[in-house]
Amino acid sequence: MTSAEQPATPAPRKRTGRRPGSADTRRTVLEAARAEFAARGYEKASMRAIARAAGVDAALLHHYFGSKDQLFLAALELPVDPRAVVEHALAGDRATVGERVAGFVLTLWEQPGVLDRMLALIRAAATTEQVAQLMRGFVTAELITRIAAELDVEQPELRAELMFSQVVGLAMARYVVKVEPLASATREELLPLLAPTFQNYLTAGA
Amino acid sequence: MTSAEQPATPAPRKRTGRRPGSADTRRTVLEAARAEFAARGYEKASMRAIARAAGVDAALLHHYFGSKDQLFLAALELPVDPRAVVEHALAGDRATVGERVAGFVLTLWEQPGVLDRMLALIRAAATTEQVAQLMRGFVTAELITRIAAELDVEQPELRAELMFSQVVGLAMARYVVKVEPLASATREELLPLLAPTFQNYLTAGA
Repeated sequence: MTSAEQPATPAPRKRTGRRPGSADTRRTVLEAARAEFAARGYEKASMRAIARAAGVDAALLHHYFGSKDQLFLAALELPVDPRAVVEHALAGDRATVGERVAGFVLTLWEQPGVLDRMLALIRAAATTEQVAQLMRGFVTAELITRIAAELDVEQPELRAELMFSQVVGLAMARYVVKVEPLASATREELLPLLAPTFQNYLTAGA
Repeated sequence: MTSAEQPATPAPRKRTGRRPGSADTRRTVLEAARAEFAARGYEKASMRAIARAAGVDAALLHHYFGSKDQLFLAALELPVDPRAVVEHALAGDRATVGERVAGFVLTLWEQPGVLDRMLALIRAAATTEQVAQLMRGFVTAELITRIAAELDVEQPELRAELMFSQVVGLAMARYVVKVEPLASATREELLPLLAPTFQNYLTAGA
């Protein structure tokens, strides 16, 4: 294109912000929602602030995503497909499954955006029975049942839930309460201590 | 005292409620505060509701207990003296310390009022950085340092904090998210699974 072919004036652009229906805007809205839920907790997070951060109209946000509940659920967008946990961590040699699960969890939290999403979930579940209930249903259906199906132990669901409890507790102590030296401990320091815990929950007595 | 000696009319009683300064009233106020913090979370808990539940005047509540922050700290009144954890659970044969810690934690939560206090703390720490900071200071000074001093391992503080993380995570999964079958599991089912975790954190590599 030569300069002669350029239009004299730029094409007209709407000044009302992004189109809420596009995939691009959906991603922007969900990112803004996750940041807001993580920063302020489920109760104090504001739809207006999310709309502002995403550059969309608040009324259109409600139109496309519904209530704060529904936006929260959409924003969960789990950082990882639960099936991936089962496939990558539980598959392979069972004698080293604890190490793979510990490595998987420690790596996961270092991925961009994952920690914010996990903390938003934990904070919301800790303060709102409705969210705890949503989490309970999701965790049971998508995570515990899948993991339990792979285990050769008695009470496989209970084992999977104890693994879940250590993951949640580690997130609380390391990233919320931020107790030292745990908050600053490296992956290399934590791996050999956490691996036996997961190994025990998933395989002891098998 | 014979009936003839009884005063004809009862001694005059104030109708304005309890005296906020008495030990009795203090206990009543702290119980009301713990119930309110546990039920509504730190942010939504109301000084007015606490005063009403305790039967004291709201202004006097402020006068005697200060701000909500200060009342919260007073209400923490940890369910157990941290030194007791160290003395009862860590003393004795180190080969069975995991079992004693697991038994201690599982028993503790069944004591009247303890669970409410623990959940109020966890909820508040999860949603309010100020409380997380208070908890961090308290946990480090009163719990981690004492436990670490008793351990014959490298990185004793890190070990003690991993133990703390499993206790917090268990409370979240069992009593907040209430995922089943963990929420209904008996002490007898949980003890043999949890004991090796605590044993590993506190003694592995000793």
